[in-house]
Amino acid sequence: MVTFLNASDVAKIVRRVGPRRFWERLVEGLRDDFLRWDRFDKCARFASHSPGGVIELMPVSDGEVFAFKFVNGHPGNTQLCLQTVVAFGALADVATGYPVFMSDMTLATAFRTAATSVLAARHLARPGSRTMALIGLGAQSEFQAWAFHEVLGIDRLRIFDVDEEAADKFVSNVAGFGLGITRCDNARHAAHRADIVTTITADKKRATILSEDMIAPGTHINAVGGDCPGKTELSRALLLRSDIYVEYAPQTRLEGELQQLPADHPATELHELLAGRKPGRASKDAITLFDSVGFAVEDFSALRLLRDLARETGVGAGLELTAAPANPKDLFSLLHPLETGQARGDALPEPMKLSD
Amino acid sequence: MVTFLNASDVAKIVRRVGPRRFWERLVEGLRDDFLRWDRFDKCARFASHSPGGVIELMPVSDGEVFAFKFVNGHPGNTQLCLQTVVAFGALADVATGYPVFMSDMTLATAFRTAATSVLAARHLARPGSRTMALIGLGAQSEFQAWAFHEVLGIDRLRIFDVDEEAADKFVSNVAGFGLGITRCDNARHAAHRADIVTTITADKKRATILSEDMIAPGTHINAVGGDCPGKTELSRALLLRSDIYVEYAPQTRLEGELQQLPADHPATELHELLAGRKPGRASKDAITLFDSVGFAVEDFSALRLLRDLARETGVGAGLELTAAPANPKDLFSLLHPLETGQARGDALPEPMKLSD
Repeated sequence: MVTFLNASDVAKIVRRVGPRRFWERLVEGLRDDFLRWDRFDKCARFASHSPGGVIELMPVSDGEVFAFKFVNGHPGNTQLCLQTVVAFGALADVATGYPVFMSDMTLATAFRTAATSVLAARHLARPGSRTMALIGLGAQSEFQAWAFHEVLGIDRLRIFDVDEEAADKFVSNVAGFGLGITRCDNARHAAHRADIVTTITADKKRATILSEDMIAPGTHINAVGGDCPGKTELSRALLLRSDIYVEYAPQTRLEGELQQLPADHPATELHELLAGRKPGRASKDAITLFDSVGFAVEDFSALRLLRDLARETGVGAGLELTAAPANPKDLFSLLHPLETGQARGDALPEPMKLSD
Repeated sequence: MVTFLNASDVAKIVRRVGPRRFWERLVEGLRDDFLRWDRFDKCARFASHSPGGVIELMPVSDGEVFAFKFVNGHPGNTQLCLQTVVAFGALADVATGYPVFMSDMTLATAFRTAATSVLAARHLARPGSRTMALIGLGAQSEFQAWAFHEVLGIDRLRIFDVDEEAADKFVSNVAGFGLGITRCDNARHAAHRADIVTTITADKKRATILSEDMIAPGTHINAVGGDCPGKTELSRALLLRSDIYVEYAPQTRLEGELQQLPADHPATELHELLAGRKPGRASKDAITLFDSVGFAVEDFSALRLLRDLARETGVGAGLELTAAPANPKDLFSLLHPLETGQARGDALPEPMKLSD
């Protein structure tokens, strides 16, 4: 039996634990996992592309626990009244290969993406940052606002989306957070005087949501939307003006804003920054950029935290995900009522051959 | 909601449909999928190796349905009273990326492996074959005997395992099938005068279960146990004497008996044989060898059949595998009772910050 959490269970756990404690544990868990970066068996995700989108499997192991996530990305889904991204994931015990935990990860993906953004910003944004621009108010936008508010103390937002309904939804959803919110007419207006600029738009194309002239010296850019080949949000000139931080360079060079730059353009990996092996913000006028694409280690952290919290809170259900015969060498025993059925002719349209 | 089948559900479906019809539909489904081989987006499986074994993710898509299987292989598990292999898998809709079906695949892996063996033997074994040697009587052995009996009319078995208890278990499990069974003292004795020789031993090493002098002209060998790097069952001389058939050459050269031979040694892919593009048995004295390692297309066939049969029989349960907010752009709405909880201070150890 594995423990299974559906999305309602995940939401229940966040409520039980309390949002701030949940976000802090997630950020700390991510930090701990990034700090033991060399323990992880890393590889680029497996991606199956089709005209409508992509389905990915993201596996990772630290030698004790194996994790994987199934996740899609289908921009046209909203027209079918479906989500652009849904996900689920599982943990398995490396020593035995047995799966031990499974969960919806649609929520967890939004959680870990925002928590990783916060982890990077904590080391890159100017101290005392309080204002964040949020450009793109889709399904993950509230999670970014929430995490930056709870963990980093961001209390003023400048928001923009081409879709007014998305902005209405966002404002309504975060109404209880006590944030000062300015609705802006365009991305330039939103980015104006923001300490941190988060881009999280959905179009699967080469877009220019932010250009160099929109960004003041000293800004930290949290670029979340550009996360697969052919999907970017920033101008090339802005990239060249910025000090770039990434999760895992080989993957980001394919999937992130970095795909616009030559393969040898400098980029610091987040684990190097966290371990103090590479410098963070160089000056108060530097423009820092976290080019986020999402990496399997983050799903690992999120799944492990959910597993721990499921135990601590007692939330979740048992799921018989794989067969469990009484004698492990006797898988066939699971079929055993077969003979009874056969003898009675129960639902057996053709009798089995009984040759000698 | 996806439809979920646990192992008991899978067994129930086999009973409801009737074993022969189940096996025949599985073999026909496999044949159909091998015949549209070029439609599949094939790639080698992802494997995470550790001292105790391996965990694999096997993805495949035909452009309409995406399938993947999680499967392990841990030879030491039996000492912990666990199974060597457990598996589960899922189907997703390529157009939307949504998962639609999930099932235990511990049973399905045994089913599809045996059905693929039958499919190959139907085209390679001498017509009128009735006797099969079965060497290695572990968890999958009954499935081989069952499939060959139901679909191919094999009615005499010559069996051997180094473990007497495994042999006892096997004999007891297949007692109702009406097979004539000869228990043999060793592999040589079992292979003697068999039309088909199936090897399905478990040791993760270079073993020689069968050597050239044990195999009579005209035999078809169904070599199932050698299925990962460093794990083989046949002597090199026997391979050189045989006409070799495989599922997918790039994978079999790494994982199958073929790993013993040079990279350019001839091997016919099963789909070429089934489509009539490559010849089958050359003469009554030829030794044919199906070097089976298991391929993702087979899991695809098995999962799709289980999905169809779940619909037809009404077996299975709904599982909320991924989040489903009422408004697909409003993932955050799933957290909504949050504010209520907050207002009541319910299980929120620290109040959220309410700065302006």
